[in-house]
Amino acid sequence: MKSKMFALIPLVLLSVLPTFRAVAQDDQTAFFIKKIYDTSLTDGQCYEWLRQLTKSIGSRLSGSPQAAAAVEYTRQVLDTLGLDRVWLQPVWVPRWTRGEPEVVRVSESKMGSFNLHALALGGSIGTDPNGIQAEVIEVKSLEALDSLGEKKIKGKIVFFNKPFDQRHINTFRAYGGSVGTRVNGPSEAARLGAVGVLVRSMASGLDDIPHTGSLRYREDLPKIPAVAISTNDAELLSKLLALSKVSVYMRTDCKQLPDVLSYNVIGEIKGHEKPDEVILVGGHLDSWDVGEGAHDDGAGCVQSMEVLRLLKKLGYRPRHTIRCVLFMNEENGLQGGRVYADSALLEGVKHLAAIESDRGGFTPRGFTVDYNSENFAERFSAMQKWLPWLEPYYLHINRGGGGADITPLRSHGTLLIGYEPDPQRYFDYHHTAADVFEAVNKRELELGAATMTTLVFLIDHFGLD
Amino acid sequence: MKSKMFALIPLVLLSVLPTFRAVAQDDQTAFFIKKIYDTSLTDGQCYEWLRQLTKSIGSRLSGSPQAAAAVEYTRQVLDTLGLDRVWLQPVWVPRWTRGEPEVVRVSESKMGSFNLHALALGGSIGTDPNGIQAEVIEVKSLEALDSLGEKKIKGKIVFFNKPFDQRHINTFRAYGGSVGTRVNGPSEAARLGAVGVLVRSMASGLDDIPHTGSLRYREDLPKIPAVAISTNDAELLSKLLALSKVSVYMRTDCKQLPDVLSYNVIGEIKGHEKPDEVILVGGHLDSWDVGEGAHDDGAGCVQSMEVLRLLKKLGYRPRHTIRCVLFMNEENGLQGGRVYADSALLEGVKHLAAIESDRGGFTPRGFTVDYNSENFAERFSAMQKWLPWLEPYYLHINRGGGGADITPLRSHGTLLIGYEPDPQRYFDYHHTAADVFEAVNKRELELGAATMTTLVFLIDHFGLD
Repeated sequence: MKSKMFALIPLVLLSVLPTFRAVAQDDQTAFFIKKIYDTSLTDGQCYEWLRQLTKSIGSRLSGSPQAAAAVEYTRQVLDTLGLDRVWLQPVWVPRWTRGEPEVVRVSESKMGSFNLHALALGGSIGTDPNGIQAEVIEVKSLEALDSLGEKKIKGKIVFFNKPFDQRHINTFRAYGGSVGTRVNGPSEAARLGAVGVLVRSMASGLDDIPHTGSLRYREDLPKIPAVAISTNDAELLSKLLALSKVSVYMRTDCKQLPDVLSYNVIGEIKGHEKPDEVILVGGHLDSWDVGEGAHDDGAGCVQSMEVLRLLKKLGYRPRHTIRCVLFMNEENGLQGGRVYADSALLEGVKHLAAIESDRGGFTPRGFTVDYNSENFAERFSAMQKWLPWLEPYYLHINRGGGGADITPLRSHGTLLIGYEPDPQRYFDYHHTAADVFEAVNKRELELGAATMTTLVFLIDHFGLD
Repeated sequence: MKSKMFALIPLVLLSVLPTFRAVAQDDQTAFFIKKIYDTSLTDGQCYEWLRQLTKSIGSRLSGSPQAAAAVEYTRQVLDTLGLDRVWLQPVWVPRWTRGEPEVVRVSESKMGSFNLHALALGGSIGTDPNGIQAEVIEVKSLEALDSLGEKKIKGKIVFFNKPFDQRHINTFRAYGGSVGTRVNGPSEAARLGAVGVLVRSMASGLDDIPHTGSLRYREDLPKIPAVAISTNDAELLSKLLALSKVSVYMRTDCKQLPDVLSYNVIGEIKGHEKPDEVILVGGHLDSWDVGEGAHDDGAGCVQSMEVLRLLKKLGYRPRHTIRCVLFMNEENGLQGGRVYADSALLEGVKHLAAIESDRGGFTPRGFTVDYNSENFAERFSAMQKWLPWLEPYYLHINRGGGGADITPLRSHGTLLIGYEPDPQRYFDYHHTAADVFEAVNKRELELGAATMTTLVFLIDHFGLD
């Protein structure tokens, strides 16, 4: 009853009264934002949606049956929200399969022979069915590889061992500093004649969990198999290599199959003033093929869906069209993001702003705004004026990235915004078997959904001028 | 080498140059703070100390052998840090034992008979060895209990079912709003003739984990046994009670034994300007008897020890005496905090400020400053000037509580400060079997230690005037 009555208030006060924008700092805005948080925390749906997406469907690699199930499940959920339009946007996606579990076996004179905790990198080729065996050579970086040259690398398995720089407060910076060895390492090693690659997992801590993730083969070079090993195993291997020669046997069964037809899942509430101007909120529906893709990026998907549900539930009538997009194929192709942006351009749909949630379902810290976006300075300063409303929730708005899926919208003049949860735990789970539903905290997820809803409301209501 | 060289810099620049205080906002302060964080994140010890305290020693209820082991272990660690003084301060503590696992069995006509997930409240008496059986009556609050009156309560087991109010962004507020049923419920129910009490666990979420915690018996009323049940079981019991009468059998084996001699563990670095003025940093060494007391409050203890280690390692020569106090008996008596404050008064030791870390080892949010402390306004505003140095670490300084152990120091004119980590997950673990080492994230713990060290440095260096 109470919530029904309230539903009428914002409709009247926030959307109709012409004086509202002039009293920006007044209680009504704060009151509506509090109502967003209250509703998310007491009557949220996103946690149960995430449970379905992770526990009933599971991992959702592009082109997999589970990815198709996720498309259908989220479409059905959006269909229940009373939106103005829900549709699927066709996207052809690559189809890579891991096949039989990978084997990485170390042979060393003192410790004998033992297996490492390993996961083939996404996109890696399979080895010969009998596997390959070669001496291992450790390098700390791509530059270090280069300086060794072909003579020392040829015929060997290159072990890239570049740990995260723990001094970064933001773990995404540490990731950025190391991930080049994963993405470009395989082809750089192949260029010098290596036969295989081991990569230290992109992880904040020391444990036994290998982290997969995409590599990028250069088309002009031979493709060699590449496998991530856990950080504990990377430490061990490095110690062994300091003592003696180490030979490694590796076998991977990965295959690149023909492309598969999949979909972006889209739902929207039409704007009543500017229906052709879209504020987008989204995440990516695909995940890697291990774990359940809970933080990456089930969380961002269910939060984006929750934004629409909360606005509907609170009776908010948006000025602009509010659109939720669950992108397909962020992990190994970005086809969903590309198709979406191309199609928006063709259809002449203008995107005022796009907010992506793809940094996990952790406790909210705020937003980062893409400083390469058009008219960044004036739009950023417009957003800074909202900080007093965000302070009760300890939120900041900083310069930073938007999100991979929305990046193709930048050239259309869209302001790109990344939702920023606390980053400390993300790289304990990212691209691993540990990224499961149980690793997501209900309140943290719901606070994130409320935070995203709040920003969508502020942009819609006050604009970015 | 690098870190050795640096060790000399703050010694010279921060402690000797008289002009330093005049250039408060300059790079040297920011540089030293960054060095604190860098060292904590790349060369921290607190996580390994916590592993010992939790995995090797375990839960540490006051008066238990494990509490004695924790005293000895932390004293030995402090002895390795090259401090000016390390000592044990004798404290007599109560000794309560849980005994045999508690049994709470529901008998209901449709579902038959089944056990609930239960933990006797700390301090509860044991039932008759054969247990007690009685009809259950549910109340939502202490006020609701009162309004029912003796006629409806007499001879029954009262079930206090007051969930957390999820709308509070800070879960400690939700805890504050519900915990009265646990602390005062048993005696309030006894006043009206109840024979036993069930309390819904003080928890943020719905799960099967019961949360213990202390009760406060009124001396003028009969003591009745009191048990916490899990939030899932509280929901179930409430649903059953809506359908029919429910009878519960409960048996607890708790005992209050004679008091035991224990200790606060204390270490300090003497100040070179004002050795008799202390800046205290601390947590409590005791925990409940389930789980491992990792977040509550192993984290606060090892962080407080780490503050001294980091300052020593960085070659910082404090103006005031920096003292780490690991208090005994916060959970069920607060004897450590009382003895410490009384003894400080007797010895004429002045405490400029006291910082307690007792809200878990989660990612840092900042500090809360006790507004009932003497000269709060001017000291708080002095601290606000430091915010530019704290911003790179996303820290705030707000009004709020200090900490239970340091509260007795308030009347001495000490400014009380609580270290504030993110509060969303705390009440998933608080006082439960789930509060184990694995629930603590290494980086989050280390960032907290660096944050506390930073504040100690700022208070020491700039004072609170």
